[in-house]
Amino acid sequence: MRPIGVFDSGVGGLTVAKELIRQLPYEDIVYFGDIARVPYGIKSKETVIRFSIENILFLLKAQVKLICVACNTVSSVALPVIKNHFKVPIVGVINPGAREAVYATQNKRVGVIGTRGTIASRAYENEIKQLDPQVKVMALSCPLFVPFVEEGWVEGEVVLRVAREYLKPLKDSRVDTVILGCTHYPILKPVIRQVLGENVTLIDSAKQVAMEVKKILAQEGPLNKSRHSKHEFYVSDNPEWFSSLAQRFLGQPVRNVKKVK
Amino acid sequence: MRPIGVFDSGVGGLTVAKELIRQLPYEDIVYFGDIARVPYGIKSKETVIRFSIENILFLLKAQVKLICVACNTVSSVALPVIKNHFKVPIVGVINPGAREAVYATQNKRVGVIGTRGTIASRAYENEIKQLDPQVKVMALSCPLFVPFVEEGWVEGEVVLRVAREYLKPLKDSRVDTVILGCTHYPILKPVIRQVLGENVTLIDSAKQVAMEVKKILAQEGPLNKSRHSKHEFYVSDNPEWFSSLAQRFLGQPVRNVKKVK
Repeated sequence: MRPIGVFDSGVGGLTVAKELIRQLPYEDIVYFGDIARVPYGIKSKETVIRFSIENILFLLKAQVKLICVACNTVSSVALPVIKNHFKVPIVGVINPGAREAVYATQNKRVGVIGTRGTIASRAYENEIKQLDPQVKVMALSCPLFVPFVEEGWVEGEVVLRVAREYLKPLKDSRVDTVILGCTHYPILKPVIRQVLGENVTLIDSAKQVAMEVKKILAQEGPLNKSRHSKHEFYVSDNPEWFSSLAQRFLGQPVRNVKKVK
Repeated sequence: MRPIGVFDSGVGGLTVAKELIRQLPYEDIVYFGDIARVPYGIKSKETVIRFSIENILFLLKAQVKLICVACNTVSSVALPVIKNHFKVPIVGVINPGAREAVYATQNKRVGVIGTRGTIASRAYENEIKQLDPQVKVMALSCPLFVPFVEEGWVEGEVVLRVAREYLKPLKDSRVDTVILGCTHYPILKPVIRQVLGENVTLIDSAKQVAMEVKKILAQEGPLNKSRHSKHEFYVSDNPEWFSSLAQRFLGQPVRNVKKVK
């Protein structure tokens, strides 16, 4: 009965935890948010790798059976380097999202939005090109989306204008599928949907990641069917700040957030 | 010929460095930006204190003769605790800004804007109340201003709308003086001015801090009058990111940013 480990630089990964809880309600989860060092997006590759290894080692101490990297920056920048260092299966967010997008697109034009770090890494582009070289990828960063979500400005005229400005190149390039390549973005789905219209498929990495985790666990034996599951939340700083934002991301209040060194 | 030390969690402190260079053109400056751990605003008090001590120790190794804390969060949260630990004079941004505001206000109504951490600390309020208990202080946080500045969205309809929304309570409370209590905010001065009108005095802490530094140095002996000064910039991560933003804050390009552990 070992738990699933999930880590992110902050609170965004809770959108992934939410999907894990929805799809795997009987699994235990240990979540770690690296609040003391958030955000990772502007940090160098070597720093992100070092932080990620430390986070993985923390989760391994909790005896996790699988680690879910619920952070696009870590998944794009660090995961290719560190994935094979560890015995435990590690699932990132890039591959599941890319696969779903390639499956969903009809006109072979896929958009990707994310933080500056994720977009600069070209991780989604490379993954999509490997899956189907014919798919054209239009990737762009929307750096203000994360602060807007964390400030709770997730609807109304201002965020809509920001979204219109950011997403204009995607509209112009007639993509029919867009990957929400940042764990904060599912919270802006209504705004993004309003700007891009009903005919564009929005790929929510969180959902795809949870499905991938479910698949891997199922391969190793039957999934738990009925028991009380335990969800634990750890942060490297400021549990109050984490708790205050957590409900928006997880869809339920988070109590008892523990601070670790 | 020892240099002045300046530190901030990131790039914002460069608006203070800019004023130091303008007012003390013949002084050497060593600037440290803690990019690896930015932002401090959401971190706990004990973490901010620990980071600040580490930054001060780094500057002391460079033989600085005075340390300028070019960060409102550190000045409000950590400085009261650590100020007396060190022999070197340490100048924060709170007291100089508060003094100027008390001096400037005619109707004894002062507004303060800053990050959430700075406002929650009530540092400006306490300082102003000590200087003049009759002054009414209206303090409010504008958390989206920093990301807007860092993304370069410093003019136009979107940031103007954000400013209108944030500053409405200040307009309603008829303050005649407003402290820009965050080192990023001077860059939004035109927008803030547009929202608050010409009759409100905007207090730019950077200017006041540089004047305070000048005063302290003058007390200890004559200031340098003519020589080539040296300005050095150190960061704890990602010198490229720092350089790309630096010009906006410093008013001149920054080359040769060095990364330290």
